[in-house]
Amino acid sequence: MTLLERTLRAITPLDQTAMAAARARQAALTKPAGSLGILERLHMQLAGIAGNPCPTLESPWIVVMAGDHGVTAEGISPYPQRVTGEMVRNFAAGGAAINVLARDAGAQLVVVDLGVAWHNRPPPAGMVRRSLAGGTANLVRAAAMSRAQAQRGIEVGIETVERAVADGADLIALGEMGIGNTTASAALIAALAGQPPREVTGPGSGLDHEGWERKVTVVERALARHRPSPADPLGALAAVGGFEIAGLVGAIVGAAGARRPVLLDGLIAGAAALVAVGLCPAVRPYLIASHRSPEPGHRVALEYLELEPLIELGLRLGEGSGAAIALHLVRLACRLPREMATFAEAGVSRQSAPPAIPAGDMPGRPG
Amino acid sequence: MTLLERTLRAITPLDQTAMAAARARQAALTKPAGSLGILERLHMQLAGIAGNPCPTLESPWIVVMAGDHGVTAEGISPYPQRVTGEMVRNFAAGGAAINVLARDAGAQLVVVDLGVAWHNRPPPAGMVRRSLAGGTANLVRAAAMSRAQAQRGIEVGIETVERAVADGADLIALGEMGIGNTTASAALIAALAGQPPREVTGPGSGLDHEGWERKVTVVERALARHRPSPADPLGALAAVGGFEIAGLVGAIVGAAGARRPVLLDGLIAGAAALVAVGLCPAVRPYLIASHRSPEPGHRVALEYLELEPLIELGLRLGEGSGAAIALHLVRLACRLPREMATFAEAGVSRQSAPPAIPAGDMPGRPG
Repeated sequence: MTLLERTLRAITPLDQTAMAAARARQAALTKPAGSLGILERLHMQLAGIAGNPCPTLESPWIVVMAGDHGVTAEGISPYPQRVTGEMVRNFAAGGAAINVLARDAGAQLVVVDLGVAWHNRPPPAGMVRRSLAGGTANLVRAAAMSRAQAQRGIEVGIETVERAVADGADLIALGEMGIGNTTASAALIAALAGQPPREVTGPGSGLDHEGWERKVTVVERALARHRPSPADPLGALAAVGGFEIAGLVGAIVGAAGARRPVLLDGLIAGAAALVAVGLCPAVRPYLIASHRSPEPGHRVALEYLELEPLIELGLRLGEGSGAAIALHLVRLACRLPREMATFAEAGVSRQSAPPAIPAGDMPGRPG
Repeated sequence: MTLLERTLRAITPLDQTAMAAARARQAALTKPAGSLGILERLHMQLAGIAGNPCPTLESPWIVVMAGDHGVTAEGISPYPQRVTGEMVRNFAAGGAAINVLARDAGAQLVVVDLGVAWHNRPPPAGMVRRSLAGGTANLVRAAAMSRAQAQRGIEVGIETVERAVADGADLIALGEMGIGNTTASAALIAALAGQPPREVTGPGSGLDHEGWERKVTVVERALARHRPSPADPLGALAAVGGFEIAGLVGAIVGAAGARRPVLLDGLIAGAAALVAVGLCPAVRPYLIASHRSPEPGHRVALEYLELEPLIELGLRLGEGSGAAIALHLVRLACRLPREMATFAEAGVSRQSAPPAIPAGDMPGRPG
């Protein structure tokens, strides 16, 4: 049995007993029923994942997968391909948004090179090197990668999470870097959610209208060439995906297999989640949607996954920035039910029937 | 000149030079232009308030105003009036949601009694006592309070913020406690935003449909009796407001007068903001909408104020919980531009023109 098969088999349903206990705890706390909104539902999900009615979140890890894309030759990004490596260097130096956000969240940040094109410059230190190639093939001309590479990329993601869990990780947040990867993600989402390319393709890091039209055509041509199918998610990933997307798929299934919540980021993590759920539907209850980006494909992916995001701030940076920002809300969803007093402890009266209304005061009568 | 008049005169426009410098800083950071979405606009607003292109947020204060409402006699809340005092006691003991959130945010929490009905029990220690009465009058039968009380309540809010600023507060987040105050707030919003009571009245802490109909009728009767007008916001506050709402109005104008950002909470803070902007439109640029609650009046208030909330989590707890949760995002809006590297520092290439496309590869031609 392969590592991937073994991991998928380890994914089991959430713990219903812990979820019921979490629900009872919420009802006992000094607040109107349901008044903490999404945070209450998140608490129940986290309880079900951890098998603990009052789960803790002490050691979140942010896993950033990086890789390059041959499709950049089609002019589908306003940034040149070398920016992937330059930004990974920026991650290593601590100067990117994700570094600031990881420090702020007290999260471990691990960056994995799954296939960055280094353009004859040495890769930076402080990064996990698991490169499958110096970028994918151009997906309008050939499969982005082989099936074997796609499977290996997923297994790198699983191994990365297994190491993180061994080091104490209790949540896996996803991030990525790869110029061109909104094109690959749009193609994957179109294929797996069954939507037309025009509906799922966005401006990425800042295309103008003409560039966007070109990008839509690229996605259309890729789908026409490869005909990726929801029935074969691994094949779709190989045909139109990316090395870093394969790594994200692995991180998702690895985390679910280890009963750790997975905090998604934006469009690219959403595409990876579609592949992961295609490989194993039992993954879905382990997913938390951090934010919704303005990219139209991200909305489609979240709707397909039936996930409601925690925030919507107009973020379209990638790197795991949305996940890192939303981490704070996941932490609060754990901390509030642990630290709040119950009605009984605080001596606060519970909801009562509304008081009887004097007859002369009935609604509708003149006062 | 009264304290209120003096405070309103001290409110000046934001610093355009600092805002332009903040915008330039954002453009230089290693990320696609605008990719941090709302956080970039928030950074500019905070820069304009502080008069500093890289403002800091070191000492946020959460100011919780508490007061009771005579209108509870009309059966407009599922909770009895004594819960106001019980929850203030819970605040003093550290067991409420706002206590957990304030600790998490590293924020100072100050609770002010502007008019809690203590029902013959001693008020807890550790609270600022500035009680104007043991609850307002029933606003369907009489003005909730006198104009003099409304003005005094506002001045208590100003004094509270002046003390906080003297102690180093660099942001004022608003919270409140007062059974019945969603009814008073709905009446204020209907009057000041010019919307029908049915459109701005919600279930509050959990009314059923019948209770909601009764609450709508109460708001309608209050407006028919008092005819509060946008031309006289102080009169509207006295007629259908609440002591804690007056305190919030004062906290808002006091913070704007001291050039401190004001982080609003939900419906009740929104009603107070309408009064404050009615008293002095120059207050508006100092306001930050933390969240949008499911209460329909809150949406109306935010639209009237032209404010876009940072989060929308289905929160309807009050206490300042939405503001305390969103505080983290305000902090990040300061921290990201201060700590991120620029393109020049990190050696990252800027956006380039899309590469020329080989003729054989033009979109639309078979690949």
